[in-house]
Amino acid sequence: MAQMSPDGHKRYNVALVGAPGVVGQEFIRILLERRFPMASLKLLATARSAGKRMLVAEQELVVEETTSKSFEGADLVFISASGAASREYCPMVAKMGAVAIDDSSAWRMDPGVPLVVPEVNADDVEWHKGILAIPNCSTTPIVMVLWPLHRLNPVRRITAATYQSVSGTGRLAVEELNTQSKAILEGKGVVPHVYPHQIAFNLLPEIDVFRDDGYTKEEWKMMAETRKIMHDESIAISATCVRVPVFISHSLAVHVEFSRPWSVDDVREILSQAPGVGLQDDPTVSLYPQPWTAAGLDDVFVGRIRQDSSHPNGMVFWIVSDNLRKGAATNAIQIAEELVARKLI
Amino acid sequence: MAQMSPDGHKRYNVALVGAPGVVGQEFIRILLERRFPMASLKLLATARSAGKRMLVAEQELVVEETTSKSFEGADLVFISASGAASREYCPMVAKMGAVAIDDSSAWRMDPGVPLVVPEVNADDVEWHKGILAIPNCSTTPIVMVLWPLHRLNPVRRITAATYQSVSGTGRLAVEELNTQSKAILEGKGVVPHVYPHQIAFNLLPEIDVFRDDGYTKEEWKMMAETRKIMHDESIAISATCVRVPVFISHSLAVHVEFSRPWSVDDVREILSQAPGVGLQDDPTVSLYPQPWTAAGLDDVFVGRIRQDSSHPNGMVFWIVSDNLRKGAATNAIQIAEELVARKLI
Repeated sequence: MAQMSPDGHKRYNVALVGAPGVVGQEFIRILLERRFPMASLKLLATARSAGKRMLVAEQELVVEETTSKSFEGADLVFISASGAASREYCPMVAKMGAVAIDDSSAWRMDPGVPLVVPEVNADDVEWHKGILAIPNCSTTPIVMVLWPLHRLNPVRRITAATYQSVSGTGRLAVEELNTQSKAILEGKGVVPHVYPHQIAFNLLPEIDVFRDDGYTKEEWKMMAETRKIMHDESIAISATCVRVPVFISHSLAVHVEFSRPWSVDDVREILSQAPGVGLQDDPTVSLYPQPWTAAGLDDVFVGRIRQDSSHPNGMVFWIVSDNLRKGAATNAIQIAEELVARKLI
Repeated sequence: MAQMSPDGHKRYNVALVGAPGVVGQEFIRILLERRFPMASLKLLATARSAGKRMLVAEQELVVEETTSKSFEGADLVFISASGAASREYCPMVAKMGAVAIDDSSAWRMDPGVPLVVPEVNADDVEWHKGILAIPNCSTTPIVMVLWPLHRLNPVRRITAATYQSVSGTGRLAVEELNTQSKAILEGKGVVPHVYPHQIAFNLLPEIDVFRDDGYTKEEWKMMAETRKIMHDESIAISATCVRVPVFISHSLAVHVEFSRPWSVDDVREILSQAPGVGLQDDPTVSLYPQPWTAAGLDDVFVGRIRQDSSHPNGMVFWIVSDNLRKGAATNAIQIAEELVARKLI
């Protein structure tokens, strides 16, 4: 259970499921960067990764296999693994009186689970019942940029196209882009393993499984999650999600219809003051968000802001965000910080 | 002047300005592939490339510097060079009574110049005055897919996001993606030359120059050219054009509002019969257009066809086309074939 440190602040026993993954490693880095008040940190993974040693603040920790006993004594459990793992472990954690913050899609749309981006709907942490979820890594950047605008001029409709990096799929996909790119540059052929087709120097408009309505589950997640986080089921949304040969950061071209027309200057002014949003918007010096420059940073970057030439109330945005940080680990840790600040754990 | 060949068909003296470029080379390949009725082929370029030898149908031709005398005796001149070259040479060619088919943006929006995609507006070749233009390589795929639908159910509004390959910029950009990708994979840094920022494993939402309204000229071209080719100034359009680390083929995620709702089955049926359009749309086997597989082919490929979840009359498409072929050389040669068939040259 949580301990009181000499400075009078509570410190928490933290467990991290999926520690060796690309997102898991970001979790460790960011927990330390943000000095999250940890009493202990337990690294968990599947049996296959158990025994692996990972360096945490110059200390070597051994990864343990996740079992029903793993969460004993934990206050807070971050889960960044498979949907199946989240479905199994989250109720276990909640039942033990600890809090699970989950990075999978398993619980996001459950009406009993708050889906939270702290800059948008921090108050939703109040009604958690032991499980909180973070949104998909392509939803978070959209709501981060649209929420401060939506409050003043409600969003009516969104059409979005995404440009998503391979790290969103995981470590093997990062290796696949690496290996395939080298092969192609040497004039060799490639055999896809992680993706259904070659990803190097190619584009794949398929992320997650296809639904009967022709949308992928990834596209559907963006639509459903955006409405849940912004507490507005009336927002019309359609998205095309595309995997691109980029290692880190997801990018989005977003066309938005608001309730009333407004000016680019007003929108820029609002976004320049929005917490967690980085405005990079000066065409005269080719300043706009790029995945390469956004990687490793916590802000959601926005630029190319302009009136939508196809609609009087429309505005167009180019949004880029590190999918491993604000798209995943940073957002989850911010939720934990919110729970700490509100004394909810 | 045109000659009569022994088979009774006219054969034409053809000149090609910009022959050594990436598009120029496609022109040569496709003229031969399609057995365009040439009496002669003159390869032209800037002084810098003059003297270069190129293999054409197992015959070595020497590239000549383009001058005011270059077009003497020509019936047909394909121009795939800079906008400045097109502005200078097109009127020269027209004045000499020959026909220029131009690949630059210099003449496209000139009211006296037909802008033609033969599958869409072939009849516009009839009123040419010596200059015809082909659209931008990201406009052609849109009108190829939307025209057969627009005739039955008029398009009201289009929002598009593009994923454009580096070959659209030219040979140096192809080399830059190659060189930068190798450097990054070896853990080295890169210095951009052709593009304002790194293109390897990155995305740049900047193609052509920025306009005062925040759109790039590339985005504006898509809007203006689509309306001109489809003969409908009422279509509302907005686009975000993005350069991606892909060598060949431009891809587009396109959201379209039609005048009335209709079914995916009807749309698929119409597109399956549209000339020059390749339907690749079976999610159950991950079949959809990809830039890697579209490269080298003349069809414009379309897939991921689905109802737009954000609008009752909406439909969403994923469109991919080889920007050097149907996006440039093939389309120009098809216009020449149209002129031949209609005895307009």
